[in-house]
Amino acid sequence: MDWAASAPLCAEALEAMMPYLRGVWGNASSIHSFGREARRAIEEAREEIASFIGAQPDEIFFTSGGTESDNWAVTCGAESLGADGRVLTSPIEHHAVLNACAALQSRGVPVRFVACDRLGRVDPEEIRESGFGPQLVSVMTANNEIGTLEPIDAIGAICREKNWLFHTDAVQAVGAVPVNVKQSGADLLSASAHKFGGPKGVGFLFIRRGVKLSPLLRGGAQEHEKRAGTENTAGIVGMAAALRRAQGKLRDREKLTSLRNEMQREILRRIPDTFPNGDMEQRLPGNLNLRFAGADAEALMLRLDLRGVAVSAGAACASGTPEVSHVLRAIGLSEKEARECLRFSLSEENTREEIEKVIAFLAEDAAQIRHTA
Amino acid sequence: MDWAASAPLCAEALEAMMPYLRGVWGNASSIHSFGREARRAIEEAREEIASFIGAQPDEIFFTSGGTESDNWAVTCGAESLGADGRVLTSPIEHHAVLNACAALQSRGVPVRFVACDRLGRVDPEEIRESGFGPQLVSVMTANNEIGTLEPIDAIGAICREKNWLFHTDAVQAVGAVPVNVKQSGADLLSASAHKFGGPKGVGFLFIRRGVKLSPLLRGGAQEHEKRAGTENTAGIVGMAAALRRAQGKLRDREKLTSLRNEMQREILRRIPDTFPNGDMEQRLPGNLNLRFAGADAEALMLRLDLRGVAVSAGAACASGTPEVSHVLRAIGLSEKEARECLRFSLSEENTREEIEKVIAFLAEDAAQIRHTA
Repeated sequence: MDWAASAPLCAEALEAMMPYLRGVWGNASSIHSFGREARRAIEEAREEIASFIGAQPDEIFFTSGGTESDNWAVTCGAESLGADGRVLTSPIEHHAVLNACAALQSRGVPVRFVACDRLGRVDPEEIRESGFGPQLVSVMTANNEIGTLEPIDAIGAICREKNWLFHTDAVQAVGAVPVNVKQSGADLLSASAHKFGGPKGVGFLFIRRGVKLSPLLRGGAQEHEKRAGTENTAGIVGMAAALRRAQGKLRDREKLTSLRNEMQREILRRIPDTFPNGDMEQRLPGNLNLRFAGADAEALMLRLDLRGVAVSAGAACASGTPEVSHVLRAIGLSEKEARECLRFSLSEENTREEIEKVIAFLAEDAAQIRHTA
Repeated sequence: MDWAASAPLCAEALEAMMPYLRGVWGNASSIHSFGREARRAIEEAREEIASFIGAQPDEIFFTSGGTESDNWAVTCGAESLGADGRVLTSPIEHHAVLNACAALQSRGVPVRFVACDRLGRVDPEEIRESGFGPQLVSVMTANNEIGTLEPIDAIGAICREKNWLFHTDAVQAVGAVPVNVKQSGADLLSASAHKFGGPKGVGFLFIRRGVKLSPLLRGGAQEHEKRAGTENTAGIVGMAAALRRAQGKLRDREKLTSLRNEMQREILRRIPDTFPNGDMEQRLPGNLNLRFAGADAEALMLRLDLRGVAVSAGAACASGTPEVSHVLRAIGLSEKEARECLRFSLSEENTREEIEKVIAFLAEDAAQIRHTA
């Protein structure tokens, strides 16, 4: 129940990758037939991925994952605005956005934050009123911890109207909910393959035609001289296959949503002093984030782990660090409260039986931890 | 005969990767057992890779490949020197170094170039005399086009003496010749897995203990907060397995060298007006770069391709671009001459029979192209 940390590589992706791990070894930038074979596979993947998000193939740039995509969009997006460039973002962004902003700030680029409410929602009207010059607006499509879906269509419309550059980190959204750059009007959109059943170490950045973004990684002439480095053919092909599969499963979102809702209802019914975090309507289908008041979430997580159940106390990327979740703090939880929260992230592969088992474990473990606390 | 562009993924690497593509799906930053299983594999790979180059495990940082490693070392290496920082490099570096230098230059960081001779060798004494402040010296271990091995041990000794930061792009060297950071004294060393039989999309940067390098990719706390992004477990494990295999094959270097020398001798004997590029002594064992005077190299390459033989006219990373090789220009060839050069890059898997066949093809094709020119 930790699909948001990383989804297993799906069988379809592995199958699609195997020819590029076994036989087709060419460097896609080589112009001999061995290279062209790799090139063809990459361009087919690019076309397919573009079609899934309403983009053109030449608007898709392959990267090493969500972090690189976010860093690229934020850093070079802000730089593309010239000396007056500024950034407007939210306090619940992933650290790949926040830390890129911090680096810009240390170089003198002004960065401002819009507030979000207790459900983790950003108010588009606050963004409209925020204008303080030519700016990059970076607001995520879906939050990785509490699953809140941001009103990116409305934010996109405002950015278009104001002629601001709009980036959205869609790492948790792509493959989980419909994502369409025509609808949102996003100029830049980040995605990561391993979040939707593709391999780790590969992702993409959508760059709208006409947006002038300088490269983050410089060197060879790959990706129309926008992203240097030998293309990860197998990874790219696997990402396309995984997205194809995930797009096919989007139909099952309602089933997943009701499974998740049922799980929440049952936990709230059976375990006292348990409180949901985030928006129950505008939310990723598989995400559930709960506070078990008086229970240390990490202890709870480790007990579940001993029972063979994977959940998260905070985001995986921040695990192992003593920091408390900046997302939970931003929606108004105290530091102590933030340390009492678990994230469950389900997929359509989780069964009702699994969920019942986990709830029984939770009821027992939470009671014990609270008792010893 | 284009192993330098990309080596096929070796069977050992694929076998090592399969468990991490099939079963072990955890995010290595998750602290539950699924994550710890991935973490363990990554740390074992780190230890093994470190041992092969004379480093400590905590000096190895995983990246998405050679380009990211080079960009990181050069950009953040120069920045680590403060406002007075400068860069000294050579004109035959890979574009991942040169273009990172150009970006630094455009931000006001002074960059100087040391000359190289007609064999592509940099003179360490010129580096010693070049001192113009606190500087990063970036000189590659082996050139990717002409195979020249640079005197990095001597350069490293000078940098130590002068207290300069020393980076070496060892992308073509690791796995092909012995590479040892204790011996060279390099502070920073870049490598890429797919050049030595590992997967594409993964590499590493060696950062000597005590060297303060800020991150290039920012976000999560991975890699001791030096390189953000979910770890590419399968890729990292595959890289370690490929390097293990390549290290084992280092014994066969003399065989490969004599095969390459034989190939050159035979070509020079049978095809008139053919001239070798680079240093025949200080050279990567499998590299051969030849100028076929009066023959367009790209045409020659495409003819060989039709016969099922892969070679390179210039580096793969620059293929498809109209630019002429900066390396061949730097060692004194005219633009026209540079367009007459082919790179052959052999491995110990190439056979004498293959080489004889290729020479026969070459003799025929070169004569035809020259005739029609």
